Amino acid sequence: MPDSTKTLSDADPLRADGGFADLVGYKLEVWEQDVAEIALTVDKRHLNRSGVMHGGVLATLIDTACSYAGCYTQKGAEPRRSFSLSLTCNFIGTATQGQRLVARARRSGGGRSLFFANCEVLDEDGRIVGNGQGTFKYITLR
Amino acid sequence: MPDSTKTLSDADPLRADGGFADLVGYKLEVWEQDVAEIALTVDKRHLNRSGVMHGGVLATLIDTACSYAGCYTQKGAEPRRSFSLSLTCNFIGTATQGQRLVARARRSGGGRSLFFANCEVLDEDGRIVGNGQGTFKYITLR
Amino acid sequence: MPDSTKTLSDADPLRADGGFADLVGYKLEVWEQDVAEIALTVDKRHLNRSGVMHGGVLATLIDTACSYAGCYTQKGAEPRRSFSLSLTCNFIGTATQGQRLVARARRSGGGRSLFFANCEVLDEDGRIVGNGQGTFKYITLR
Amino acid sequence: MPDSTKTLSDADPLRADGGFADLVGYKLEVWEQDVAEIALTVDKRHLNRSGVMHGGVLATLIDTACSYAGCYTQKGAEPRRSFSLSLTCNFIGTATQGQRLVARARRSGGGRSLFFANCEVLDEDGRIVGNGQGTFKYITLR
Repeated sequence: MPDSTKTLSDADPLRADGGFADLVGYKLEVWEQDVAEIALTVDKRHLNRSGVMHGGVLATLIDTACSYAGCYTQKGAEPRRSFSLSLTCNFIGTATQGQRLVARARRSGGGRSLFFANCEVLDEDGRIVGNGQGTFKYITLR
Repeated sequence: MPDSTKTLSDADPLRADGGFADLVGYKLEVWEQDVAEIALTVDKRHLNRSGVMHGGVLATLIDTACSYAGCYTQKGAEPRRSFSLSLTCNFIGTATQGQRLVARARRSGGGRSLFFANCEVLDEDGRIVGNGQGTFKYITLR
Repeated sequence: MPDSTKTLSDADPLRADGGFADLVGYKLEVWEQDVAEIALTVDKRHLNRSGVMHGGVLATLIDTACSYAGCYTQKGAEPRRSFSLSLTCNFIGTATQGQRLVARARRSGGGRSLFFANCEVLDEDGRIVGNGQGTFKYITLR
Repeated sequence: MPDSTKTLSDADPLRADGGFADLVGYKLEVWEQDVAEIALTVDKRHLNRSGVMHGGVLATLIDTACSYAGCYTQKGAEPRRSFSLSLTCNFIGTATQGQRLVARARRSGGGRSLFFANCEVLDEDGRIVGNGQGTFKYITLR
């Protein structure tokens, strides 16, 4: 049985088993040059006391999708990693339990040491839940 | 057996059992007029693949501490809630497994419908891990 | 001789003669429902000591274009105004003397009291100089 | 007649005669290790159509004060310059004509290639007009 998400996840150089990605439960769905999409179905564990998605979940999606967008490398190439320097999120709509969200990020600029990226988070109906932008620094592994 | 954290948590009008606060595991430790502090001990579940705390965890701490700082009400008064409009985080240092972080937020301005808040996240040695600022809207419950 | 920019400026309910718009010298060029574009030719007065456009100029363009994008009203309708609550800018490229910049903003959400907007600033070659996003509050005039 | 502001301005490695600093008219008043203060008296040229200080002026003050805070060097040492990567401003109060504002910035972290800084803008009565934070990259001059 083919499982493209699983395959993608296996190859994902930014994901740590048992780390925050697994705790929150988002999945990398699209990963290409300068572009990334991650998806999350909002669950009870993502809610705040007001019964809507916690702001920290939106920030996590935006931060993660932006990081991926700047760190794509072709199969077989040295993986790229980054850490965030700054992140801004606008909370435009609310998301509630059961909704499936997609965070679409795009690298907007940068060079060899830094990059900039933007992200929009949409629900299944294409309604905007939030957006954000950040600055990121590539990690030099050696 | 006295347990001040438990008592504080019981009275916490922003926390939902089983929601994101429990998933991430931060605790509200100080809550006064215009001020809030929340604490988190960095665990394996908070890490990214690079072995340091995920950016989304820092954003969650800052968003949460800022929200509390603007929503304090005296015991017995109507609870106040807010949702985030915008949040910005700067990732100044890194945090690793085992470190205990404190996010100290202060309401910096606003009125009856909106407020502004700032937050610093420090480790046990007083070293800055990150900081942030946000704008928030009070929820009118009726 | 027709001069559409002049006409637009005359009708511009956000501009004050002799105020910051005149000092900086940007022009409103496109103004439609949820969309605005302002243009600026970079001049000596916009530079910092390093000989490139001051960060404050980019922030001014983004703040202004976003404000317009959320405040469009049809001819004859009551003018709308707003003040900024938060603004974030990323400085992606540099702009130098003689370049003509266009800041394209779009209202991304909101309601009757608040709105959100995004903006990209491009040079003549379509290269991105910076981008930003903000939250804004409508001014109730009476 | 001693004039410390003039002396400070003469030694100011970030200011260009005839550039944006002169156009806006802010003055560097305090400049020490990791700290800077700039002042501005709000004038007609700083206003928007609503008769209050344009958001771009606040952003300019915050961007500039933060840049100074990270670029201090002792007299005789090689001057340091930076460019902004990201800047966020919160507009907490309004400022009107005749008010004297002070923007107090502090470098909050960073290393040899990047720094982070924060800024508060206060009026004469100590009331907060706005605050902000940014990330900056040092310019390597050779």
